[in-house]
Amino acid sequence: AAGLGAAGAPQPPNILLLLMDDMGWGDLGIYGEPSRETPNLDRMAAEGMLFPNFYSANPLCSPSRAALLTGRLPIRNGFYTTNRHARNAYTPQEIVGGIPDQEHVLPELLKEAGYVSKIVGKWHLGHRPRFHPLKHGFDEWFGSPNCHFGPYDNRARPNIPVYRDWEMVGRYYEEFPINLKTGEANLTQVYLQEALDFIKRQQAAQRPFFLYWAIDATHAPVYASRPFLGTSQRGRYGDAVREIDNSVGKILSLLQDLRISENTFVFFTSDNGAALISAPNQGGSNGPFLCGKQTTFEGGMREPAIAWWPGRIPAGRVSHQLGSIMDLFTTSLSLAGLAPPSDRVIDGLDLLPVMLGGQLTDRPIFYYRGDTLMAVTLGQYKAHFWTWTNSWEEFRQGIDFCPGQNVSGVTTHTQEEHTKLPLIFHLGRDPGERFPLSFASTEYLDVLQRVTPVVQQHQKTLIPGQPQLNVCDRAVMNWAPPGCEKLGKCLTPPESTPKKCSWPH
Amino acid sequence: AAGLGAAGAPQPPNILLLLMDDMGWGDLGIYGEPSRETPNLDRMAAEGMLFPNFYSANPLCSPSRAALLTGRLPIRNGFYTTNRHARNAYTPQEIVGGIPDQEHVLPELLKEAGYVSKIVGKWHLGHRPRFHPLKHGFDEWFGSPNCHFGPYDNRARPNIPVYRDWEMVGRYYEEFPINLKTGEANLTQVYLQEALDFIKRQQAAQRPFFLYWAIDATHAPVYASRPFLGTSQRGRYGDAVREIDNSVGKILSLLQDLRISENTFVFFTSDNGAALISAPNQGGSNGPFLCGKQTTFEGGMREPAIAWWPGRIPAGRVSHQLGSIMDLFTTSLSLAGLAPPSDRVIDGLDLLPVMLGGQLTDRPIFYYRGDTLMAVTLGQYKAHFWTWTNSWEEFRQGIDFCPGQNVSGVTTHTQEEHTKLPLIFHLGRDPGERFPLSFASTEYLDVLQRVTPVVQQHQKTLIPGQPQLNVCDRAVMNWAPPGCEKLGKCLTPPESTPKKCSWPH
Ligand SMILES: [Ca+2]
Ligand SMILES: [Ca+2]
Repeated sequence: AAGLGAAGAPQPPNILLLLMDDMGWGDLGIYGEPSRETPNLDRMAAEGMLFPNFYSANPLCSPSRAALLTGRLPIRNGFYTTNRHARNAYTPQEIVGGIPDQEHVLPELLKEAGYVSKIVGKWHLGHRPRFHPLKHGFDEWFGSPNCHFGPYDNRARPNIPVYRDWEMVGRYYEEFPINLKTGEANLTQVYLQEALDFIKRQQAAQRPFFLYWAIDATHAPVYASRPFLGTSQRGRYGDAVREIDNSVGKILSLLQDLRISENTFVFFTSDNGAALISAPNQGGSNGPFLCGKQTTFEGGMREPAIAWWPGRIPAGRVSHQLGSIMDLFTTSLSLAGLAPPSDRVIDGLDLLPVMLGGQLTDRPIFYYRGDTLMAVTLGQYKAHFWTWTNSWEEFRQGIDFCPGQNVSGVTTHTQEEHTKLPLIFHLGRDPGERFPLSFASTEYLDVLQRVTPVVQQHQKTLIPGQPQLNVCDRAVMNWAPPGCEKLGKCLTPPESTPKKCSWPH
Repeated sequence: AAGLGAAGAPQPPNILLLLMDDMGWGDLGIYGEPSRETPNLDRMAAEGMLFPNFYSANPLCSPSRAALLTGRLPIRNGFYTTNRHARNAYTPQEIVGGIPDQEHVLPELLKEAGYVSKIVGKWHLGHRPRFHPLKHGFDEWFGSPNCHFGPYDNRARPNIPVYRDWEMVGRYYEEFPINLKTGEANLTQVYLQEALDFIKRQQAAQRPFFLYWAIDATHAPVYASRPFLGTSQRGRYGDAVREIDNSVGKILSLLQDLRISENTFVFFTSDNGAALISAPNQGGSNGPFLCGKQTTFEGGMREPAIAWWPGRIPAGRVSHQLGSIMDLFTTSLSLAGLAPPSDRVIDGLDLLPVMLGGQLTDRPIFYYRGDTLMAVTLGQYKAHFWTWTNSWEEFRQGIDFCPGQNVSGVTTHTQEEHTKLPLIFHLGRDPGERFPLSFASTEYLDVLQRVTPVVQQHQKTLIPGQPQLNVCDRAVMNWAPPGCEKLGKCLTPPESTPKKCSWPH
């Protein structure tokens, strides 16, 4: 792929990743959302390539984002926990770990090809100083290191800071208000402006850019700005989607107005499935798929995905390539004319032959929950080695990752092992994972024979990274981020009391 | 609407209704089916108007089709049973009833405007001589009076006849084979040819036509012809959908080749939701909706719907009008410049102002199961007065209308009455009917206040028709249909033993 940019332009193409937070496969009109309120994203698909079989690397934010930016499964890059078996883990502000220095983060590598990189929005790969995105290749940052949970009292727990580059410029619920009652927050507009400004500046400077637009309006607490509040048929969640859709339209229009759309690769996707636990008011839709965020069913990890690059990616195509968020790492390097690192396993594929040439590549999709390989998809078949939603104890308290859905023996509330005889589904006939193949069928045996060596090879050669999500400590929370002094917003941390993080599901 | 045809052409527009059988809302790419195997239907939507909120009049074949052709709810036109409370009923070949003579059937009325009418495929409004479609306004028929169930032994039960016009020309599984093992049958190709031939003949004769293309390949036993078998990612059901999609493409192309597309109104929809009881091999998808055929949840009655009329209906639009299959009756009359009958209640609306002018009209959608009003939708809100899937007894035998779905207190296996305090859902926020509004909320009370008078008015003024689906008799089966003598295919009927039909759910 080297020279791809060079052929059509004096510099490699710009790369723009639009990463949504907890947006579900079924949230876009083009993916069948009945209210059809995403005209800009639908148009992006009509002008680009739609991927109905595109997957996150994890059903939770942090590991998914770490996988995107390293091209590697969370089990390799350390974004998992060994505290308990098959537990989802992420980076709340008491987490001690984060992105290891030895991981190659995408913008670090893109620097070699002269890219200027910016992250707008949620980083979520660790909030302690050593994990700062500007220490991992980004040149600019506007956004926050953790989720926009809160408000907190700044005594037991500080409010999450918002950074501009190296320093904090305020905190959520303080300088950056989110009204939990009305759902009003101006953040998507701020993030949009950051994106537009960055694009204009890089275009003026004639430097190739990597913009990672990792906005979070569809993650609970869901928010929208006043002009969008109350405008959706879908309630507050839909208001957030409408504002995002409108923003994407403005970003794509700017690329066209600046006449750089033919030199800018844009990809839209989401970090994990819709959080059905927040539905119907603050959670999205996973369409016909089973369960949602937190689970390794399709609803937890199959994502909306659209590639857009006018003049290069043919318009109006659908690719059934099994794609992964990790492919965005390798594909971005390919766009920059760079080879992926050869000193380690990279799970992401270069999708350019898929997007430019319509090729299809056989590859497995692995579904992990923490330290455990829960399932694998190969071609049309998905094999589950473990099934679990959450514990009976949680479920009885009303925490339900699969509301309204119940597939006997599949959406289990105890961890069920099927490593010897996996539950196998045909995702074409049965996208909802409702009808396991009969163990006695020749189809089952054929699939098992094909899946087994792939999984054995994967597990035999796997070298797990040092788990980053095991230790929590209240002392590491965002008490006194860099820049707090100038703002008079430094808080006093408590004494350090490191302990194992509690990951209930 | 009179003169609509006259304005642009020397004759009123042709009317082409493409009615699918048990096809679900989620079966088309444009409605989000992940395999996206309906390029022709997706293009039809891109060139026409998509209706995401379009409803059948009943979750079962016969009543839905009777409603389409009379513009009236089954409770009015007689297509229901009073044998037991809230039972689905249809027209198996032992049924004694059928379309009453006093009902105005659409092609009867279209005759007044000079239309030639043909039905291709499944009639399902009664198979006894008095109910023959050519006695109810159609000029031509190729197809069958009942479902393509079988094969039968021609002793306890005759195979279903296939008619050409007045006489039978063979029987399913005999002259018209369906291979249940391989799924091979040539019927969609035959039905396609019938459609193309009819269109060409009417175009040559310069007569306006009404073609009712009521094909049944997506009704179990699902079938496809050899070139399509094994071609879908979705298995046999998908093969059937692909063949239908291909056929629709050929029909629309013919209209364009004959240069009559701008004088032909085409509407695509389905008679009821996907039969999940036949999934995954012989049943389709209802997308994000709850349950399927047989139920009054959205999966049972919300249908795919596309209007196509190049040059008249603007391209690429989505209408959120609450539409009904009964609207096709009134709209067709309007296209012909005719007023609907004024001597009876017509439930169908004229959708031309919606389709040509983008108007939206407030109207309720009523969901009946047999004699019982189960639910109503008004705007975004749906109120359930009764909930039921099927009996525990059936369910324990494995008959499941909602596989993998279970909404506590909603997908009930006993008939639960909620007439005083209906279960209310907001279909925009919660299309899957998973989260009933709290009875204590002001939203609930507001909706109840709006729904109650609409339902009271409906019920107060309702005059139920004579129920047609109460009496069954083995003697009335298709033993000796007209034409059987010529073919040597007459069978001897047993003695008449009329009794109440058994409708288990
Ligand atoms: Ca997320
Ligand atoms: Ca049907």
